[in-house]
Amino acid sequence: MVRSAPRIRADYRAFQTLMTRWIDNDIYGHMNNAVHYQLFDTAVNGYLLEQGALDIKSGATVFLVVETGCQYFSELAFPDVITAGIKVRKLGTSSVIYDVGLFRGVADITSAQGHFVHVHVDREKRLPAPMCVETRTILEQLIND
Amino acid sequence: MVRSAPRIRADYRAFQTLMTRWIDNDIYGHMNNAVHYQLFDTAVNGYLLEQGALDIKSGATVFLVVETGCQYFSELAFPDVITAGIKVRKLGTSSVIYDVGLFRGVADITSAQGHFVHVHVDREKRLPAPMCVETRTILEQLIND
Amino acid sequence: MVRSAPRIRADYRAFQTLMTRWIDNDIYGHMNNAVHYQLFDTAVNGYLLEQGALDIKSGATVFLVVETGCQYFSELAFPDVITAGIKVRKLGTSSVIYDVGLFRGVADITSAQGHFVHVHVDREKRLPAPMCVETRTILEQLIND
Amino acid sequence: MVRSAPRIRADYRAFQTLMTRWIDNDIYGHMNNAVHYQLFDTAVNGYLLEQGALDIKSGATVFLVVETGCQYFSELAFPDVITAGIKVRKLGTSSVIYDVGLFRGVADITSAQGHFVHVHVDREKRLPAPMCVETRTILEQLIND
Repeated sequence: MVRSAPRIRADYRAFQTLMTRWIDNDIYGHMNNAVHYQLFDTAVNGYLLEQGALDIKSGATVFLVVETGCQYFSELAFPDVITAGIKVRKLGTSSVIYDVGLFRGVADITSAQGHFVHVHVDREKRLPAPMCVETRTILEQLIND
Repeated sequence: MVRSAPRIRADYRAFQTLMTRWIDNDIYGHMNNAVHYQLFDTAVNGYLLEQGALDIKSGATVFLVVETGCQYFSELAFPDVITAGIKVRKLGTSSVIYDVGLFRGVADITSAQGHFVHVHVDREKRLPAPMCVETRTILEQLIND
Repeated sequence: MVRSAPRIRADYRAFQTLMTRWIDNDIYGHMNNAVHYQLFDTAVNGYLLEQGALDIKSGATVFLVVETGCQYFSELAFPDVITAGIKVRKLGTSSVIYDVGLFRGVADITSAQGHFVHVHVDREKRLPAPMCVETRTILEQLIND
Repeated sequence: MVRSAPRIRADYRAFQTLMTRWIDNDIYGHMNNAVHYQLFDTAVNGYLLEQGALDIKSGATVFLVVETGCQYFSELAFPDVITAGIKVRKLGTSSVIYDVGLFRGVADITSAQGHFVHVHVDREKRLPAPMCVETRTILEQLIND
């Protein structure tokens, strides 16, 4: 297991503002480790919704999560306002690996960062389906080379 | 059981902006009924923190919840932005009954509304403790008569 | 607001075993007030599923929550095992009011208790729909007179 | 990113029974990816509590999470009962890497599996602290060589 160095805002390509909740703080007074994944999910899907790449209720295809991971560097806690940074590390035919970072307030280095892997599937059969050109174009804009 | 009419923004005295999360939507595609209480908690405690009436980590006293209730009028769902309206219905020596309403986007009538009852207690013994003058003053501003 | 007395197991008609999670404990070291509603939902829907009165994925009708409430008497906390007691207070044509109590471990009096109101609706239109005879029979068994 | 093969029960050394909740199912009708981490946390900390290696309220030391990860192979959903398998992959002086697998009902292969890294810290200063002999002995029993 290799420990990564915290990334900075310039490492990401899109940003979403997220808010913490009272219930996020666990008995140790900071945001519980599972909550970070609620924020990853919200940041990535929020971006896809904004861009028109996801229709939650009636799209013929949806994105399912097949792998996630997170490293925790410093505490986040309610009432922090958090900025999630997103970039695409790898874009496949029917899958995409996102890197996501969580920034506390105005900080320029992540408090936590991880990855989030989506597979694009047919909603009913849940089998991998190639992404359409429009979706690929949206995701290509998040590649940071 | 008497069903209330939805309230409007002018019925409340303080407001907090809250954001929904992907995970809030349950299998029916709307915010699960338990999430409304996460928002009530966040709105009330967020207000107390902003006003300096609550010190989460080191205050000698804290507020514990002894009763809550909610009526659901219309759906809320991710990615809605929600405004919580707060007012104080009754202020006792060591307890306070809040009314809380949740407004979807720019709507002027509540999608859901309820009450939230805090008892002010000694942090260690967890026995009721009278609120200090400063806290009472903050809460009196939320009384809407 | 009238404070109820805690009920006992004999006041309820059906029971569901529920388990707490690490994340349920908030900064005060006990189960956060919103979690009780996750348990109410799980107990009532779990009972309906067991009895065959609910088909989550493909039923033509579903139950939506229109009102909930809870009074908190004593702390629950991870790793407590909780028993939820359920009874039907009122059974209408297309709605049902449940009373739910949460018992810590082997305790015979509730740590928290509340109510939970379901409306039976058409899944697509989300308009009230009369319950069928089979569902009514299942719910009538929970009436405690 | 290398995709692992699903593990079986014999790959793990200790087991915890976990229950799903209504709210765990997201809009796609299965357990949301962030919930798996609530279960990892509950399984590992539940084991530590049972073994006497963790005193939530008054221990001088606690375990903080510094890294987690999960691969999702097949759906879990309410009302599934889940068994979490735990083993220790690596035991350091003040840290421990757990492997955790989630088994649906009586299945012998995991629906999801991941890792969970705890650092043992002084409760107040939150700096790494060597584990005592008793804790090491408890964790050594989870090493599967």
